[in-house]
Amino acid sequence: MLKFDEINSKSLQEYRAGLLNRYEDFKSRNLKYDMSRGNPCKEQLDLSMGMLDITDYESCDGRDCRSYGVLDGIPEAKQLFAELIEADLDEVIVGGNSALNMIYDTIARAMCFGVSDSEIPWGKLPKVKFLCPCPGYDRHFAICELFGIEMIVVDMKSDGPDIDAIEKLVSEDEAIKAIICVPKYSNPDGITYSDDVVDRLARMKTKANDFRILWDNAYAVHHLFGEGDRLKNIMKSCKDAGNEDRVFVYMSTSKISFPGAGVAIMAASKTNVSKIKKQLAVQMIGPDKMNQLRHVRFFKNVGNIEAHMRKHAEIIEPKFSAALDILSAELGGKEIAWWNKPKGGYFISLNTLDGCAKEVVAMVAEAGVLMTPAGATFPYGKDPRDRNIRIAPSLPSVDELKNAIEIFCVCIQIASINKLLLMK
Amino acid sequence: MLKFDEINSKSLQEYRAGLLNRYEDFKSRNLKYDMSRGNPCKEQLDLSMGMLDITDYESCDGRDCRSYGVLDGIPEAKQLFAELIEADLDEVIVGGNSALNMIYDTIARAMCFGVSDSEIPWGKLPKVKFLCPCPGYDRHFAICELFGIEMIVVDMKSDGPDIDAIEKLVSEDEAIKAIICVPKYSNPDGITYSDDVVDRLARMKTKANDFRILWDNAYAVHHLFGEGDRLKNIMKSCKDAGNEDRVFVYMSTSKISFPGAGVAIMAASKTNVSKIKKQLAVQMIGPDKMNQLRHVRFFKNVGNIEAHMRKHAEIIEPKFSAALDILSAELGGKEIAWWNKPKGGYFISLNTLDGCAKEVVAMVAEAGVLMTPAGATFPYGKDPRDRNIRIAPSLPSVDELKNAIEIFCVCIQIASINKLLLMK
Repeated sequence: MLKFDEINSKSLQEYRAGLLNRYEDFKSRNLKYDMSRGNPCKEQLDLSMGMLDITDYESCDGRDCRSYGVLDGIPEAKQLFAELIEADLDEVIVGGNSALNMIYDTIARAMCFGVSDSEIPWGKLPKVKFLCPCPGYDRHFAICELFGIEMIVVDMKSDGPDIDAIEKLVSEDEAIKAIICVPKYSNPDGITYSDDVVDRLARMKTKANDFRILWDNAYAVHHLFGEGDRLKNIMKSCKDAGNEDRVFVYMSTSKISFPGAGVAIMAASKTNVSKIKKQLAVQMIGPDKMNQLRHVRFFKNVGNIEAHMRKHAEIIEPKFSAALDILSAELGGKEIAWWNKPKGGYFISLNTLDGCAKEVVAMVAEAGVLMTPAGATFPYGKDPRDRNIRIAPSLPSVDELKNAIEIFCVCIQIASINKLLLMK
Repeated sequence: MLKFDEINSKSLQEYRAGLLNRYEDFKSRNLKYDMSRGNPCKEQLDLSMGMLDITDYESCDGRDCRSYGVLDGIPEAKQLFAELIEADLDEVIVGGNSALNMIYDTIARAMCFGVSDSEIPWGKLPKVKFLCPCPGYDRHFAICELFGIEMIVVDMKSDGPDIDAIEKLVSEDEAIKAIICVPKYSNPDGITYSDDVVDRLARMKTKANDFRILWDNAYAVHHLFGEGDRLKNIMKSCKDAGNEDRVFVYMSTSKISFPGAGVAIMAASKTNVSKIKKQLAVQMIGPDKMNQLRHVRFFKNVGNIEAHMRKHAEIIEPKFSAALDILSAELGGKEIAWWNKPKGGYFISLNTLDGCAKEVVAMVAEAGVLMTPAGATFPYGKDPRDRNIRIAPSLPSVDELKNAIEIFCVCIQIASINKLLLMK
């Protein structure tokens, strides 16, 4: 098909009339699909039901996991998840059901008490700023916004966030205390940071001597279409650069076992972990150890987790493929939308022509398809070019998804023609 | 037996020689008992194993509890626990496995963002003070200490904390932002606040217009030796007094089902809950709903929870009775120790002669019995009269407990004689 901006107005109008007919047809079918978030589907949740068959709850050191205690995780859970997160045993904390909550708690503690190198708590400073690679994860931005942290947008490139810009910013501004990011199969772009970006983040000079990297490795083993990317171990890079206290790493089994009842893990230097555990001991008595034991007994080792992730991939790859095929068939060559083919994670990121994203998401919503709000992938929900849309294909069935993506493509074309006609 | 202080020095010395023999004999047996915390024993944990037999995880509104979502609890959990905590459905939040963590979070949020009536976050104020009825719960004090909150000791009386003193303090000092307490079967004294104390806490005039009552109702249904006490519903009292936003109520099933894997509940006014939920939505996606469903399917209604608690009582009452019998037999009439017979909760609180508690706890530790550290029941771990010791009889077997309490009584007598001889 021709590029849309090379087609004359009359032809565009005629083409739009056909699209509007398709749109009205979809609307009349009263569809109701949810593509708003990275939700695993029922078949994926069923993969982990075997872990519920456990009948005794004694940990390897003879502890009754039903009772109180064990702040940082039972030994076998620390063993398994330390290997998964690529850290030493005394560098990990195995917690409850939410890595997001661990990230929130890290930031809350930094605001109230500072981190190990802070002279004063971040909350007592006149201004705290975080670097936010964008497009990014809306829940990260929401935490920053709640705590009044100013978010500085850093553009994403094909190998990670713009590291030249980052190096310059952190070297000049003492108020920049952290970068918060998803370094592997980034949300939503599916980009894995290159070794060079990881190393430069680890070794860059920062004006704030208590600068921190909040490394939300949410999709560490969540490959699609093959072996997947390898992310350099940032804890090792930080150690090599003499900045071992700089990074906090987070993972969870939310998209490995159960999103509502998984296990979250964080890793950091011994100094950081020791400080965190002192504060954590005041906050709680211990995480749900019964659930930790369920996970360890079921998965046993990292190899089994990887094999389990291939089963997840087999379920969701056809959905990603179907979505990508329809995007290509409907939008290919028209120069009105650009998207990635992810090698892992849960999303396809799509850019429309500038100024069209909000209109598209509103139109598909009217046809019964719930997508992530336009703008959500930027701080304060404001995409400066109003063009980025996050597609989460995992939850609907393949047939539902095909319908949903078709509606989506119809809406993108209508909105694009509306825009192009205005400009002509 | 005579009162110790009416016995002459020589006789006391002779008596002490016999006690020291008993003590050495205990030491030679290399015992190892834990009476340090309110830990349920194995037989108690076994009572709830039936809840693990659940095989489907669909909530009453058709939601898959294995996946993300539902910030404030699944509907059937809200229904059950709202009734238990005596609040309306829109006044409760059903959370994860720890009420302590909910209390910590409440205080952390107040420090970072203030509460619904705050003009500025508490953490931005030059000074924040909490009232702490004492003896009290060490983990409450630890949270205050971590946040730099100044703790003001309020004496416990037989019907609750000294309410005259409280009314005076809060009417004069704007920096006093809260009282934190266990109002039923108080930790460690086992005292239930009277209706009058509840009502006066609810209606008292406070200089701080964002004053809060942190009402840790940890032992609401944890009766011993009969029907138990009734605690007046403070949310109703606060409403009646026009102060409905004043109170946060906390409960958990830690000592109903599993201490490490229970369900925590909080209740507050609609205004408070609405504000909390906005902040909570940034902190987390949702609690472990699978575990909430296990609890609801197993208990079904409050009547069954009460019946279940009678089974707990049948297991631990013989331990409390054995402890109380030995205390009476060994210490009765000697005027060197005073203790309560609790009608519920998990503790016996004992006062020695002034200045003896630390010595006693150290001596029993040397004989292999771990008790709560002396001083733990006061802020900063400092009991001004060094006399209060918390006994937690639930974990050891009856036979172990008998040994442990006997050692304890021997040590109290030795320490008391040491003190009395010094004073003669």
